[in-house]
Amino acid sequence: MANTNEDLFKNIIGHAKEYGYVFQSSEIYDGLSAVYDYGQNGVELKKNLREYWWKAMVQMHENIVGIDAAIFMHPTTWKASGHTDAFNDPLIDNKTSKKRYRADVLIEDWVEKIRQKIDKEVTKAEKRFGEAFNKEEFLATNQRVLANQAKIDEVENRFKTAMENEDLADVKQLIIDLEIADPISGSKDWTDVRQFNLMFSTEMGSTAEGANKIYLRPETAQGIFVNFLNVQKTGRMKIPFGIAQIGKAFRNEIVARQFIFRMREFEQMELQFFVRPGEEMKWYDYWKEERIKWHKAIGIAQENYRFHDHLKLAHYANAASDIEYNFPFGFKELEGIHSRTDFDLKQHEIHSGKKLQYFDPEINESYVPYVIETSIGLDRLFLSILSDSYKEEQLEDGSSRVVLKIPAFLAPTKVAVLPLTKKDGLPEKAREILDELKLDMTCQYDEKNAIGKRYRIHDANGTPFAITVDHQTLEDNTVTVRDRDTMEQERMPIAELAAFLDKKVNMKYVLRR
Amino acid sequence: MANTNEDLFKNIIGHAKEYGYVFQSSEIYDGLSAVYDYGQNGVELKKNLREYWWKAMVQMHENIVGIDAAIFMHPTTWKASGHTDAFNDPLIDNKTSKKRYRADVLIEDWVEKIRQKIDKEVTKAEKRFGEAFNKEEFLATNQRVLANQAKIDEVENRFKTAMENEDLADVKQLIIDLEIADPISGSKDWTDVRQFNLMFSTEMGSTAEGANKIYLRPETAQGIFVNFLNVQKTGRMKIPFGIAQIGKAFRNEIVARQFIFRMREFEQMELQFFVRPGEEMKWYDYWKEERIKWHKAIGIAQENYRFHDHLKLAHYANAASDIEYNFPFGFKELEGIHSRTDFDLKQHEIHSGKKLQYFDPEINESYVPYVIETSIGLDRLFLSILSDSYKEEQLEDGSSRVVLKIPAFLAPTKVAVLPLTKKDGLPEKAREILDELKLDMTCQYDEKNAIGKRYRIHDANGTPFAITVDHQTLEDNTVTVRDRDTMEQERMPIAELAAFLDKKVNMKYVLRR
Repeated sequence: MANTNEDLFKNIIGHAKEYGYVFQSSEIYDGLSAVYDYGQNGVELKKNLREYWWKAMVQMHENIVGIDAAIFMHPTTWKASGHTDAFNDPLIDNKTSKKRYRADVLIEDWVEKIRQKIDKEVTKAEKRFGEAFNKEEFLATNQRVLANQAKIDEVENRFKTAMENEDLADVKQLIIDLEIADPISGSKDWTDVRQFNLMFSTEMGSTAEGANKIYLRPETAQGIFVNFLNVQKTGRMKIPFGIAQIGKAFRNEIVARQFIFRMREFEQMELQFFVRPGEEMKWYDYWKEERIKWHKAIGIAQENYRFHDHLKLAHYANAASDIEYNFPFGFKELEGIHSRTDFDLKQHEIHSGKKLQYFDPEINESYVPYVIETSIGLDRLFLSILSDSYKEEQLEDGSSRVVLKIPAFLAPTKVAVLPLTKKDGLPEKAREILDELKLDMTCQYDEKNAIGKRYRIHDANGTPFAITVDHQTLEDNTVTVRDRDTMEQERMPIAELAAFLDKKVNMKYVLRR
Repeated sequence: MANTNEDLFKNIIGHAKEYGYVFQSSEIYDGLSAVYDYGQNGVELKKNLREYWWKAMVQMHENIVGIDAAIFMHPTTWKASGHTDAFNDPLIDNKTSKKRYRADVLIEDWVEKIRQKIDKEVTKAEKRFGEAFNKEEFLATNQRVLANQAKIDEVENRFKTAMENEDLADVKQLIIDLEIADPISGSKDWTDVRQFNLMFSTEMGSTAEGANKIYLRPETAQGIFVNFLNVQKTGRMKIPFGIAQIGKAFRNEIVARQFIFRMREFEQMELQFFVRPGEEMKWYDYWKEERIKWHKAIGIAQENYRFHDHLKLAHYANAASDIEYNFPFGFKELEGIHSRTDFDLKQHEIHSGKKLQYFDPEINESYVPYVIETSIGLDRLFLSILSDSYKEEQLEDGSSRVVLKIPAFLAPTKVAVLPLTKKDGLPEKAREILDELKLDMTCQYDEKNAIGKRYRIHDANGTPFAITVDHQTLEDNTVTVRDRDTMEQERMPIAELAAFLDKKVNMKYVLRR
């Protein structure tokens, strides 16, 4: 049983591996850092999450269509989007250990240490002065705390200013002034700070004049923007309308951690919604509302979602908010909703020399549309479901179980079909039932082990229903249906199974909300 | 109307763009060679093809599960699979034009020219001697034909031997001996032939010691092999069992052509089926049979499929066959079925130092399983459906139409819902029907243009059914249902629509075959 959130997170990662949700990539070669593979259960959960998003966004909205753009794009795309010039992390090497670090992370870690020092001192003071107040000591403590707080403010301001002025020399000087040491070697011998682009590059083609340097897309959004007019014209779309896309994106993160939360290869589900300029705030509010509803309809703990409105905006945005989820390591971004203005389309106009305008028949005017983006990390969404579903339970009989309470419509396998024993025709009867159900839902046949042990395995796999075929089944064509979450069993005619289960597992009842 | 296959192919490509199936990638930047984006209809067709494959392979087979491995893999993977050392094309540069060519393609093109010369001479002779036979002339012709045939055999043998011996100098010499000129400049001034690896590489991470060179996977198969034991153990799989995967793969093809048939970025759907050594031929035959049935169940022209058994086998295979499809440019590989022996797993054992064995409880023995692979290119499959469905029809009334007769269960949109006019409450009634249907199938609402024109647009989009809401609908709650292929209309109560359409468009009736 996990006592701390850290323990809990470790247990979830262990469970994800043990039950075929997530494996370390290339594990037999000792893995590839910050890359993961999805196993036999993981692939189905991921597939169901994609399907839930796609149906809710595309199938349920008359004015939203999808596309599937390639990962490879023309390199000028990234010039236009700003990624070639500005998608950087400031890096610094330690000359002794030869290790490379993000300068901002080194400084953040330093700030964090001072903050902890303040916290500790305050806690200590609270305790001490609760017992016996001492004015001098109180004032001295107060002074130290205030001085440390001032120090933090000064450091954060200096770093911010240096980054804004692209003064990397001062970032280095700050690291030296703060006497930050390499966490590995303890050495304070640092190289200069350099900007490092986060895009993965590769060479395409092979002409004698040299191949073409291209990038793996760092976001899927640009695939939508460059296709905006193609889709609008061939799909005869009228503003407001949206283009949705699901696909891989790649970022060469230096500090990649927290399991599948931040990976170098990840999957995004994005909507770009094109609106009339001036109407973007209405639609921004609409999509904030729609998206939080979508998350909450999944049916996991509602209090684990919150909005985080951005005060500081990216250069392309005039409003932005995150939907955050309470992961085992705290509230973190799950989805972003951004009012991107006409920045991207205008940039593509400039770099391509092509007009990317829409003629609006209602106001008899051509314009570059404004864009509201909703962008969700599929892998993070996966992790939110997994974290929320993982339960270590003490049962009444004194035993314990681990169960994945994944909402039924998302569960990899909907139904386990279990003959009580391997003989007397029970397996044949079980397979008959399976053959009837498997066209409409994912099923698993399992005859290994005692029935109690099988229930535990399918609980841990996250399968919401187990149908047991026993000797009574042969007499009256009834089976028991066991509910994963309540562990209660209900006897039911086989003829009623399909309709009963459909109501419980079919995604359409969640979409209909 | 297309008169030749070449014309037809051009028309299909044009139609694919005009109706939102396939766009050139980054078109506003004049495109990226051999990379394409799927538009609003293309993405849905692709999605349905994936779904049909996944359901048929994973959901319908008790002993097959899926995975979703990352595109990035540990670089030793490609050492083990042989791709680092042997996944090459022999390239040669022309010094005058600075253009680069595949040496094998230059030689093949030369052979093709001689072959055409022979054909021409034979055709001419047939015609001439049909009119008046001349023995001397006949013998002379015969001699020339035989000499040319001998020349071809000699060239092909010499090239094959040179490649087998890795004698690239002789490949160059052959090009010089044949006096092959650069098709652009006419120059015969060639560089040496060099091997060029087809994998895309990139640099991951950023340590001071230098980043890690990794590759974009050139095939999805290895993601399955390195996860073989993880899946077998955590999924409690018993041999024979399979692991299925759908995902992107990348090859830096020098000669990429024929639209989406050969792309640098493409999608594979692969099954690796693990069997007891010695039983692989039984399973090889089983999967050949299963896979051709799967294709034929799609319901497009049956005569356009054929098997092509390989006589020359890859180093890892002991049997191999392609399912070929009759594309507008001829019969070409659509899917490969390969008996891969234990080659891959054994190689990974050697390179990882980890045992990749299965303990078979039935024979009480551990072994490295043998593997049957079925591997299909999703983009090629897409092209086969598109090519087969595209029809230019002359109608009885003298007009013509272009229609995509995509099998209904694969069609991007199943139903177009059309109010006859924009007033009298018809749009509201139409939307009521749409709201009822859209949870179960993809629908499109369309009120623009005259009804006849709308029918044509949805024919061209490939939508199998159009429901028209007219004034009679308001009186008796009936609508007309128009069939895309026959263009016949049937009047039907709204209450019967859902059941009628479900039978026609639901994939499960195809899977049940």
